[in-house]
Amino acid sequence: MSIAMQKVTVNCDMGEGMGHWKMGDDEALMPMTDLANIACGFHAGDPSMMLKTVRLAKKYNKLVGAHPGLPDKEGFGRRYMDIAPEDMYCQTLYQVGSLKAMLDSEGMTLHHIKPHGRLYRMIKDNPDKGDACMRAIKTFGVPFIGLPGTAHEELCKKHCIEFIPEFFPDLWYDEEGQTVPILSAGRVPLPDIKGKVGKVISTEMVTAITGKEAKVPFDGRPFTCCIHSDLPGAVEAMTDVRGAVDNAAANA
Amino acid sequence: MSIAMQKVTVNCDMGEGMGHWKMGDDEALMPMTDLANIACGFHAGDPSMMLKTVRLAKKYNKLVGAHPGLPDKEGFGRRYMDIAPEDMYCQTLYQVGSLKAMLDSEGMTLHHIKPHGRLYRMIKDNPDKGDACMRAIKTFGVPFIGLPGTAHEELCKKHCIEFIPEFFPDLWYDEEGQTVPILSAGRVPLPDIKGKVGKVISTEMVTAITGKEAKVPFDGRPFTCCIHSDLPGAVEAMTDVRGAVDNAAANA
Amino acid sequence: MSIAMQKVTVNCDMGEGMGHWKMGDDEALMPMTDLANIACGFHAGDPSMMLKTVRLAKKYNKLVGAHPGLPDKEGFGRRYMDIAPEDMYCQTLYQVGSLKAMLDSEGMTLHHIKPHGRLYRMIKDNPDKGDACMRAIKTFGVPFIGLPGTAHEELCKKHCIEFIPEFFPDLWYDEEGQTVPILSAGRVPLPDIKGKVGKVISTEMVTAITGKEAKVPFDGRPFTCCIHSDLPGAVEAMTDVRGAVDNAAANA
Amino acid sequence: MSIAMQKVTVNCDMGEGMGHWKMGDDEALMPMTDLANIACGFHAGDPSMMLKTVRLAKKYNKLVGAHPGLPDKEGFGRRYMDIAPEDMYCQTLYQVGSLKAMLDSEGMTLHHIKPHGRLYRMIKDNPDKGDACMRAIKTFGVPFIGLPGTAHEELCKKHCIEFIPEFFPDLWYDEEGQTVPILSAGRVPLPDIKGKVGKVISTEMVTAITGKEAKVPFDGRPFTCCIHSDLPGAVEAMTDVRGAVDNAAANA
Repeated sequence: MSIAMQKVTVNCDMGEGMGHWKMGDDEALMPMTDLANIACGFHAGDPSMMLKTVRLAKKYNKLVGAHPGLPDKEGFGRRYMDIAPEDMYCQTLYQVGSLKAMLDSEGMTLHHIKPHGRLYRMIKDNPDKGDACMRAIKTFGVPFIGLPGTAHEELCKKHCIEFIPEFFPDLWYDEEGQTVPILSAGRVPLPDIKGKVGKVISTEMVTAITGKEAKVPFDGRPFTCCIHSDLPGAVEAMTDVRGAVDNAAANA
Repeated sequence: MSIAMQKVTVNCDMGEGMGHWKMGDDEALMPMTDLANIACGFHAGDPSMMLKTVRLAKKYNKLVGAHPGLPDKEGFGRRYMDIAPEDMYCQTLYQVGSLKAMLDSEGMTLHHIKPHGRLYRMIKDNPDKGDACMRAIKTFGVPFIGLPGTAHEELCKKHCIEFIPEFFPDLWYDEEGQTVPILSAGRVPLPDIKGKVGKVISTEMVTAITGKEAKVPFDGRPFTCCIHSDLPGAVEAMTDVRGAVDNAAANA
Repeated sequence: MSIAMQKVTVNCDMGEGMGHWKMGDDEALMPMTDLANIACGFHAGDPSMMLKTVRLAKKYNKLVGAHPGLPDKEGFGRRYMDIAPEDMYCQTLYQVGSLKAMLDSEGMTLHHIKPHGRLYRMIKDNPDKGDACMRAIKTFGVPFIGLPGTAHEELCKKHCIEFIPEFFPDLWYDEEGQTVPILSAGRVPLPDIKGKVGKVISTEMVTAITGKEAKVPFDGRPFTCCIHSDLPGAVEAMTDVRGAVDNAAANA
Repeated sequence: MSIAMQKVTVNCDMGEGMGHWKMGDDEALMPMTDLANIACGFHAGDPSMMLKTVRLAKKYNKLVGAHPGLPDKEGFGRRYMDIAPEDMYCQTLYQVGSLKAMLDSEGMTLHHIKPHGRLYRMIKDNPDKGDACMRAIKTFGVPFIGLPGTAHEELCKKHCIEFIPEFFPDLWYDEEGQTVPILSAGRVPLPDIKGKVGKVISTEMVTAITGKEAKVPFDGRPFTCCIHSDLPGAVEAMTDVRGAVDNAAANA
């Protein structure tokens, strides 16, 4: 089954090394992912790393998305920076454009855009900055991967951008079906991930961090499961999520 | 007459400020230029400066080209760096792609590519690095601005890239009709520029630094005259070159 | 009279160019200032600019201080960045240490430390970040220039750092004798600056933005007047403030 | 025996990670080294990494040196950059000064300076650039680690800088007792390193890459053995070299 026909996909952030520095086992993760989100040189990555990762995705016939971030390598794009909305608009165009050219050079197309780390959250939480980024993203005419039931989804509607809801297998959810930041709640134990993914695919339900059952607002739509490539156990997490997604597809 | 129909055009490097730092009087120069070469954030410029300059070009209905450079803001892209050809390939894709996205967002198209400073010379002088950059440039399907009778022209032929020969009104030429580096020969006095441009348009001849007459290898082709926006007297030089080019067109 | 014996001094941020980019007319301002605050390469400046500015201060026999900032050249150190306190501690050591080495190489000594832009405000407004920076500053055993009656002063007391209160001739003050941010209130008209400085020296009073008279909490202590070198009219402002300070000293 | 009394020491480049990126197993290597060369943020490292590494050295009571490099993180300081000598002078002051402040803050002292990668070679091979760097190094009054019988040694004599000759256990040597670049000759097999170090300590001789015996120009002086922390097998190489050095000391 082609990736485009899958109801549930797996996405993974990649190309987050820089120069001589490595991060994430892209070689091991690429064959198991469906969508590769490639860093664009602001929070991580550099032009050579980007093209190398594009070619790795090409080798395994994967779909590539842009993974723009805040201009902050030392903070890995995870620190809040009070950048003016218009500057964020320009930075988003810049980063996605740079990746698109790499894809053009390999005869590939840009499939989606998923912002990184703090930028992902700022788009959700700050209306002006979020709107500016979405206007930039609109330029590329591809889907946005984000959190369902949040401003991510509203901004996509406003700007007529296709929205792909995202699920985080290793994050805790609250009773409203929203993610709880990893810094406050920690990660879900890796052995629990496979079951969690299988359950959310079949029922759209998760066991919230409080112990109660919660509904994730997928509302029957296709969604994508994110693997954090830079965290310990990434390959194991990927293997388990891949397995759960494939099982569900086989039984569908 | 539309820019595309002019036999001789004027091009100017722009958008070379960064953040709060200014460089070049883009506001004064843009109305007089035909082609605006916009820095792409490696030797100068940043995303916000790039979009601002793109919009300035749009306001005056000018053609925009990418002006990629070496990744060296402190050296303004003028210092030799021994970057591997494959890395230069990636850096060229990255920079031009970033500008192309800005143009897309404004409904404009990329018109040409002209490398900056030391990169311009490295493409001419270093076969492996030059070839790598030209392979990247080929991806964009637009003309390359470079020095006629040099490896610039040969590489364009090899890679089927349209070639626009360039003339430097404020540089000295040698008896072979090639430019002499500004660091060794200095600049042609500004008052001499208008006459020099008028003459090269009508005869393809320049008075070489030795005093002898020399032929510039334009061979009847259209060419473009470069204004150095960051040097003293840039607006005066632009005014004179613009005048000479317009006079020649009126009398053609 | 030596600078060290003056009750009121003038300080000015300098060395805020970078590579080929200029900012501020350091050549004109240096002879009129008492204390030169030199940027350390994070928000502005680079190693060559730093040494050039150190040598300019040496030529005019001026006292040099470090002017550390946030690691954000594109935002000129004026955008909030949520950097962890421990990282701010390290960045402060790094920047001041780099300038100190330049001074050592010229047989000069570090006279004071005055943080730049947003960092100056973050030290005042954020207890953890401020404390971290002050612990780093303590290492160098020199005075801190800051706002009287704020956390600047309290942190100096806590860490046994000598405190030099600062006055801003071109900023508005509120009725509590505290500065009003330039973005909300704008600048005091340049023609009013000379009188304002003469008055604060003799009476410690300013006319607040509300029109009422307000006391600046100098409490009889020596203080220093800041000139913003990057704003329009910097040389005129410097001339007027210098004149007011010298008049007051002559009449004291 | 204190490190200062050892005839032969072991030195190791450290702190070459950056932000979230790791490089080299500093935790494992630090206890076995004598001298820790800490990267200063230009080719690798950042302020937080620097202080962390300084504190690790303090924990194990090791001597710390500055490891300045070219301003090129993407190339890890290994690519030639044609930086003007005066700029290299300033960059060297800047980098070493930044580390010195970190040491000051921990009550430690700067023990030596050893440049990194391409800068190490440029000082040896380019008289003007080398002289500029050495003038900067002279400011700090500490020894320089470099290659005996090369311009490293001559420049130290000229500038009255103490010189510590360096031996590379994993590099090949030619018949003149000089190192052969790793890119052309590869590395000495790790199992051969222990014997090679033992032999050079007792006889100052190495088996050259040609198979002939060659004398390294230590001339009876103390010297230091370098471990490349970023290459595969670094901990094993360190263990073997440490063993050989300790054996020789025990038998001396």
